[in-house]
Amino acid sequence: MSDTLTRLAQVIESRKPANGGDPDKSYVARLFFKGDDAILKKIGEEATETVMAAKDARVGGDKSKVLYECADLWFHSMVMLAQFDLTPQDVLQELARREGISGIEEKASRADKA
Amino acid sequence: MSDTLTRLAQVIESRKPANGGDPDKSYVARLFFKGDDAILKKIGEEATETVMAAKDARVGGDKSKVLYECADLWFHSMVMLAQFDLTPQDVLQELARREGISGIEEKASRADKA
Amino acid sequence: MSDTLTRLAQVIESRKPANGGDPDKSYVARLFFKGDDAILKKIGEEATETVMAAKDARVGGDKSKVLYECADLWFHSMVMLAQFDLTPQDVLQELARREGISGIEEKASRADKA
Amino acid sequence: MSDTLTRLAQVIESRKPANGGDPDKSYVARLFFKGDDAILKKIGEEATETVMAAKDARVGGDKSKVLYECADLWFHSMVMLAQFDLTPQDVLQELARREGISGIEEKASRADKA
Repeated sequence: MSDTLTRLAQVIESRKPANGGDPDKSYVARLFFKGDDAILKKIGEEATETVMAAKDARVGGDKSKVLYECADLWFHSMVMLAQFDLTPQDVLQELARREGISGIEEKASRADKA
Repeated sequence: MSDTLTRLAQVIESRKPANGGDPDKSYVARLFFKGDDAILKKIGEEATETVMAAKDARVGGDKSKVLYECADLWFHSMVMLAQFDLTPQDVLQELARREGISGIEEKASRADKA
Repeated sequence: MSDTLTRLAQVIESRKPANGGDPDKSYVARLFFKGDDAILKKIGEEATETVMAAKDARVGGDKSKVLYECADLWFHSMVMLAQFDLTPQDVLQELARREGISGIEEKASRADKA
Repeated sequence: MSDTLTRLAQVIESRKPANGGDPDKSYVARLFFKGDDAILKKIGEEATETVMAAKDARVGGDKSKVLYECADLWFHSMVMLAQFDLTPQDVLQELARREGISGIEEKASRADKA
């Protein structure tokens, strides 16, 4: 299943203009071409759409919409990661690290300190 | 590596009050206890923090901050997924489906139609 | 100066389809025509753009960009208010009420309770 | 009514540490003390809460919640403006300018160009 993330990250990487990505043919190449702000704006947009889909799902809306928007959010996160030469594996490693060092409750202690 | 997502999803699942999660001891149990809005608010917060970290990384800031905030965003996305009885595997499947059906460019065609 | 808000609210109101607003000619009429989600999505977008502009302004970017994006955010807030038959005057009244009852520090006490 | 914005901007200004604002006593002074990121994070948060309140208002929720969250959003926008030595009057002037130059439809032409 993580193969999906790896494969997707490779496709995204191949869409960078430096790797031959063509803004006229590829949505992702277009995002890379436009640069940081276009990509970051999508993070804000997709987060908002995820929240709206979750709200809708609570009142008879389709739960698959939540899944769809969350996939969009993760996908655009991966474009942002690639823009910074980071990978989803780096994110998984960071998540694993947290679990390893201090368990999933690290956030709790952080929050309690704040 | 996807084991990380699977394992993390299991831990998150175990933090649901119905599964014995204790709001006094666990940050995630506390989120579940507070409910939808507390979780969705975190999606908006973490997205904003991701955007800010990316901006900082462009001007001498640490790239690892982008990773850290993106991990936070994915982590809270997983809490939201669990709240809707969805899993990260469902998200990966949706991402794989897009790649399979129409390639990573599906979004482009969607965008062109819009 | 509040005349600006009042006048703007009137123009926005006149763009509602029910008031003759034409989606083919007017951006605001188009938003009303698309409905809630299109309008709410803009709130998330403009908030993200405001945050990005503020980040840029800190590293040599133009401060007027912050102003511009904040104006966009307030403008789309007003479209949302109109969508709920609320007015900027209602918002100002709420802000004045807070100041009156408990001073600008109401939020502090709220936050302390949380 | 715009007096509310002017008065509020003055109170906010007085909460700056440089003007004697005390982080121990004032929520706004605390935000200024924490700096840019704390303030910008609130923009993202309040935008998300506004979107959630609007969603709730559509399914029997209280419309006054939309007003309340929008007031929060505008209030924190004003703290951000103050952080950049900008005022709500500057925002109103920008909004009036748009109306003057090209009417409320300026955005439309911008959007059509995009």
